[in-house]
Amino acid sequence: MQLSAATWPEIRDCESDLAVLPVGSTEQHGPHAPLGTDTLTATAVAEAGVEAYREQTGADVPVAPTIPVGVAAEHRDFDGTLWVSPDTFRAYVRETVASLAHHGFDRVVIVNGHGGNTDALREVTGTISREDAAYAVAFTWFDSIDTEEEMGHGGAVETSLVSHLDREAIREDELPAAREGASEGWGEWVAGVNLAHDSEEFTDNGVVGDPTAATAELGERLLARSGDALAALLVAVDSRNRGDEAD
Amino acid sequence: MQLSAATWPEIRDCESDLAVLPVGSTEQHGPHAPLGTDTLTATAVAEAGVEAYREQTGADVPVAPTIPVGVAAEHRDFDGTLWVSPDTFRAYVRETVASLAHHGFDRVVIVNGHGGNTDALREVTGTISREDAAYAVAFTWFDSIDTEEEMGHGGAVETSLVSHLDREAIREDELPAAREGASEGWGEWVAGVNLAHDSEEFTDNGVVGDPTAATAELGERLLARSGDALAALLVAVDSRNRGDEAD
Amino acid sequence: MQLSAATWPEIRDCESDLAVLPVGSTEQHGPHAPLGTDTLTATAVAEAGVEAYREQTGADVPVAPTIPVGVAAEHRDFDGTLWVSPDTFRAYVRETVASLAHHGFDRVVIVNGHGGNTDALREVTGTISREDAAYAVAFTWFDSIDTEEEMGHGGAVETSLVSHLDREAIREDELPAAREGASEGWGEWVAGVNLAHDSEEFTDNGVVGDPTAATAELGERLLARSGDALAALLVAVDSRNRGDEAD
Amino acid sequence: MQLSAATWPEIRDCESDLAVLPVGSTEQHGPHAPLGTDTLTATAVAEAGVEAYREQTGADVPVAPTIPVGVAAEHRDFDGTLWVSPDTFRAYVRETVASLAHHGFDRVVIVNGHGGNTDALREVTGTISREDAAYAVAFTWFDSIDTEEEMGHGGAVETSLVSHLDREAIREDELPAAREGASEGWGEWVAGVNLAHDSEEFTDNGVVGDPTAATAELGERLLARSGDALAALLVAVDSRNRGDEAD
Amino acid sequence: MQLSAATWPEIRDCESDLAVLPVGSTEQHGPHAPLGTDTLTATAVAEAGVEAYREQTGADVPVAPTIPVGVAAEHRDFDGTLWVSPDTFRAYVRETVASLAHHGFDRVVIVNGHGGNTDALREVTGTISREDAAYAVAFTWFDSIDTEEEMGHGGAVETSLVSHLDREAIREDELPAAREGASEGWGEWVAGVNLAHDSEEFTDNGVVGDPTAATAELGERLLARSGDALAALLVAVDSRNRGDEAD
Amino acid sequence: MQLSAATWPEIRDCESDLAVLPVGSTEQHGPHAPLGTDTLTATAVAEAGVEAYREQTGADVPVAPTIPVGVAAEHRDFDGTLWVSPDTFRAYVRETVASLAHHGFDRVVIVNGHGGNTDALREVTGTISREDAAYAVAFTWFDSIDTEEEMGHGGAVETSLVSHLDREAIREDELPAAREGASEGWGEWVAGVNLAHDSEEFTDNGVVGDPTAATAELGERLLARSGDALAALLVAVDSRNRGDEAD
Repeated sequence: MQLSAATWPEIRDCESDLAVLPVGSTEQHGPHAPLGTDTLTATAVAEAGVEAYREQTGADVPVAPTIPVGVAAEHRDFDGTLWVSPDTFRAYVRETVASLAHHGFDRVVIVNGHGGNTDALREVTGTISREDAAYAVAFTWFDSIDTEEEMGHGGAVETSLVSHLDREAIREDELPAAREGASEGWGEWVAGVNLAHDSEEFTDNGVVGDPTAATAELGERLLARSGDALAALLVAVDSRNRGDEAD
Repeated sequence: MQLSAATWPEIRDCESDLAVLPVGSTEQHGPHAPLGTDTLTATAVAEAGVEAYREQTGADVPVAPTIPVGVAAEHRDFDGTLWVSPDTFRAYVRETVASLAHHGFDRVVIVNGHGGNTDALREVTGTISREDAAYAVAFTWFDSIDTEEEMGHGGAVETSLVSHLDREAIREDELPAAREGASEGWGEWVAGVNLAHDSEEFTDNGVVGDPTAATAELGERLLARSGDALAALLVAVDSRNRGDEAD
Repeated sequence: MQLSAATWPEIRDCESDLAVLPVGSTEQHGPHAPLGTDTLTATAVAEAGVEAYREQTGADVPVAPTIPVGVAAEHRDFDGTLWVSPDTFRAYVRETVASLAHHGFDRVVIVNGHGGNTDALREVTGTISREDAAYAVAFTWFDSIDTEEEMGHGGAVETSLVSHLDREAIREDELPAAREGASEGWGEWVAGVNLAHDSEEFTDNGVVGDPTAATAELGERLLARSGDALAALLVAVDSRNRGDEAD
Repeated sequence: MQLSAATWPEIRDCESDLAVLPVGSTEQHGPHAPLGTDTLTATAVAEAGVEAYREQTGADVPVAPTIPVGVAAEHRDFDGTLWVSPDTFRAYVRETVASLAHHGFDRVVIVNGHGGNTDALREVTGTISREDAAYAVAFTWFDSIDTEEEMGHGGAVETSLVSHLDREAIREDELPAAREGASEGWGEWVAGVNLAHDSEEFTDNGVVGDPTAATAELGERLLARSGDALAALLVAVDSRNRGDEAD
Repeated sequence: MQLSAATWPEIRDCESDLAVLPVGSTEQHGPHAPLGTDTLTATAVAEAGVEAYREQTGADVPVAPTIPVGVAAEHRDFDGTLWVSPDTFRAYVRETVASLAHHGFDRVVIVNGHGGNTDALREVTGTISREDAAYAVAFTWFDSIDTEEEMGHGGAVETSLVSHLDREAIREDELPAAREGASEGWGEWVAGVNLAHDSEEFTDNGVVGDPTAATAELGERLLARSGDALAALLVAVDSRNRGDEAD
Repeated sequence: MQLSAATWPEIRDCESDLAVLPVGSTEQHGPHAPLGTDTLTATAVAEAGVEAYREQTGADVPVAPTIPVGVAAEHRDFDGTLWVSPDTFRAYVRETVASLAHHGFDRVVIVNGHGGNTDALREVTGTISREDAAYAVAFTWFDSIDTEEEMGHGGAVETSLVSHLDREAIREDELPAAREGASEGWGEWVAGVNLAHDSEEFTDNGVVGDPTAATAELGERLLARSGDALAALLVAVDSRNRGDEAD
């Protein structure tokens, strides 16, 4: 259930105390995939998850509109990348969750499509759960499922999911160049420490991994798997005593 | 040109120093119109404006993804309304504009769909233009055109535009009740001062004005007119010396 | 009743829960009017208002000292203009109101003499009323009365009121030059949007309007009218249920 | 030279790079002295200082309007006391000084009338001098002269100066009670540490010291002495290399 | 070289642009290990690392004093745990690094002893490297070496290292109870998401893992290995072009 | 009782509601004394104080780990000096005290070794005592006892105490030069105002006073006297009604 598409009395009549808040990013995904990749995937996974949950439980969970700009300064050397500071991102997420909780949706699962958001989401969900009138956790889809291929950045995994969602969104003729300019791994590691703070330090075209290995079929499997994982998480969050109730 | 749909090399090749950033809100619009009304309308007006500009000038202007949650605490008593503090909203807008400017899009028109964002946008565009490496102004579509009907809230104007954009989005059978519970004007005024800080202080169902007067045809005219007004603004912003250049 | 002139036991014995907080600005008002114009006028209107209220109701309302520096960066290109950021201004106002409320004066009318403060005051009075232990509204005198002449900036209206309050304060021999270098309107408008963030973008000497049309007699009428309007507002604020009591 | 009373061209023509910013407080001063005592005294000392400086050097120094609310939470238990947090106070002072420096007045002496502001002013003048485009120091009049009597709070020193400035401002018939309820010293000391954070912990009526020892004649001497001390400071600040110039 | 033990001329004469900043935590480590475990280990590893680096290169690297309180709210249900917010922690680290850089030590390796600090350190080192006049990375010793045993919390790894550093610090008679009340893993996982924000949600006595498997000999190996890893990192940081130099 | 050396059950079993938090600084102390002087002395005084208190009362008071970096920008021109902003310092202290109070240690004496921290500590202990669930005061050892010699900076007093604590820490052969380059007093005073914000404005080598007058014997007396003074303060804090209880 898209919160944005509902009217306020329809939301009032919704009995859930669960809500889902998708969080994406607008950032380079190589020469072949759109800047909105993470927003597109987070939105799709959120929808698949609440649909799977509805099928299992019969209950509707509202999905808030997707936050489109996240923590992505590490890609700022590639054109079109948008970002806010982690402080601003956390505040935006925290206050949006607080307004959901104001209406009784006080168990919120944040569905995340971008690795760079992960640390900030772990922190802000801890803060929310400890200090605010809500419980929140963050679900990053590619960390929650078997992705079959290496995740990378703009690699086989993301390219597959985008391809499944909107085949036109992938520039197929750019795929060979995308592979060519890609790095094999994320970062530049010495003694367990990544010396690189920005992606341009280790990848020429912004890609990590091999996007030519992507298929829409893999994308379809990833979406189904992510939806199932999210539904399982919603079940667990729904039935769980909150941390603050154990105090 | 949707920035989110483009790849980074496509944005790199875009020669404009103009960009458009739509800003909406997710908030009650009465029993008949969706919570996402302002996000829907801001997005549509932004697209209409850059299309009209492209037709006039041949130049493509990137449209950033729409910021979906704004300054809307005044509607918090109606379910589903989401909001962030004005401070967080300004920071989110300011930093998003700074990242556009980082890539050379340093003349930014913010296209706004929500009256409650107006003060904060006037402030933050002043701050950006004075202190940051960008020039920004905010365009609120219903303040820039002849709306034919009273603006209100969830009234004839917004209902018409939503109806034109997505006829299914309006709950037609709720329209009589929407009019019934509406107030005639916004606020509770004494000596030029609005004593009410929240909409529930003066409207029973969140509506101000008469949504039964809405028509999709009016919506179509509003969109065309808004697009033209935005295109005219883009022309002016493109050709103007910036304030800081006059220092 | 000037709070500053009273002793603490006198304030303790004051039974009102109303208070007035004047807010001015120190900023250019052309070559003929003093930088302190807005502080002078806000102070005078506040006094006139509580006097009119006392005559009507017999009740004394304390007037806090006038805050002298506000949101005026838009005039920074003219010498002597002082300003703080909107954030600092809001904090200063909010905390001053909180200290009034600490002593039981928890219905506060802010009397404002400067257009540039208006947005910030609307925001901070909303924040105070929603989140703090007080109710506050802002009264900008020239927005609350029939001013007879165009408001402008340093134009006929303000010049008249200053002239009435302190005839020596107006440099009469500068009036012709003041009119000469003035602009006719505030800002530079395209499609309902003001492209100018600073006043020096559209006025040579800081003046908007025609100060030669000013008279002390008009000033006297403006003061009386503003005092009456403020008294009417105090009556309304005194008798009104607060927003938070309606929750 | 009162900055507020001047026009912008008059300030433009002022050749000084010195400015004076008076800072007061609105807070209890016992049953006999007005809440505005510290604002009144800071304003008077600032005027006396620039007058003495003008007599010595022939140069005019602009005096900014007095900031009326300071760091005074320690008196919050006595009615009418107004205060802001030290953070807000520092920001308000710092930004006001920055706007003075914007116009070339980048050597600013803050003239302070309230002991509770002292720590915050020492900090903020250090911050300004190290980080901003200005040099600032704070002058607290009663710390800079021989006061003859013990300073206290609302005691002989302040009562004398107020009495000299405005004899009506002192409630003479309250003086015996003021002495009666006073404490002899400020605070409650053990091992060099003041255990009391608020004045109501050690004084019944807010007074420290003996206000019956006050005379207008002493007040006159205090004012002259303070003005001379401030003039000497202005001379030193005018001729001094700044700290940042030594870097 | 301990910076705290040196005089300022000795630091002035140090030619390195490298510095090490150890960061610990003061938080529960079960009934057998001291609250200062992470501060103790971070300090020891920092010393071992600069000693190993000195042996390899002949160069002395100053070690700043260890920051003793970090991000540890997740342990707040166990007595004696101290913590600050992530915002305050980041500010404290960032400004300390800025003061090191002020003296020319602008390549800073933060040596971390606490898992809860990791996200905040990744963020703040990115911010420092992008926005400040320094390059920084964070080295968390147990993430950089083969620990032989599971890390846990107060488990075999930490208990071994503390035991090696200060055998008296481990309460040996508490070890059986420590194992008894421990959990096997950190957190409560569903679909790749940890539902627990605080450690008391999954461990009775604060321990994760088996501290009875600890030996001082393992501790000695861990320290040597950590020192070597840190020395290798220092070599890499010393020789590397910084990210900002590649811009 | 060192909190860091205890386990959490040992702290749980501690019945005190008193705690001590030492605060030092890492900053230049001339060519003869270590940068860590203030951290060393604050730590030693804290230990001496709780030991003296334990001897008098039989009660154990936990001593938190010493905060090593404080407000010391005034020494930034001398190498190795570390500092954070007063805002960050106050936040770090305030939140550390809040975590002590979370465990029931809600009467906290901060033991300070650095004059530059004094203003910030007075402010933050006031804020804590008024707004948080704790009472706090700050004890600066050299302000609380008869120091026999002038305090200065790196002068006889500090050098004596360091010498007593760790004779090797003082570079004896640098003492003549330390005296040679020292200034006689702190600052550059005109009309009761210190014109110097930084120590390099008035001392060549960072020293104020005469370190050659230092003796370990004086250091021993200073430590004993400071410990006794701190014990007396702890007795007073333990038995005192808090300010908030008097409200």
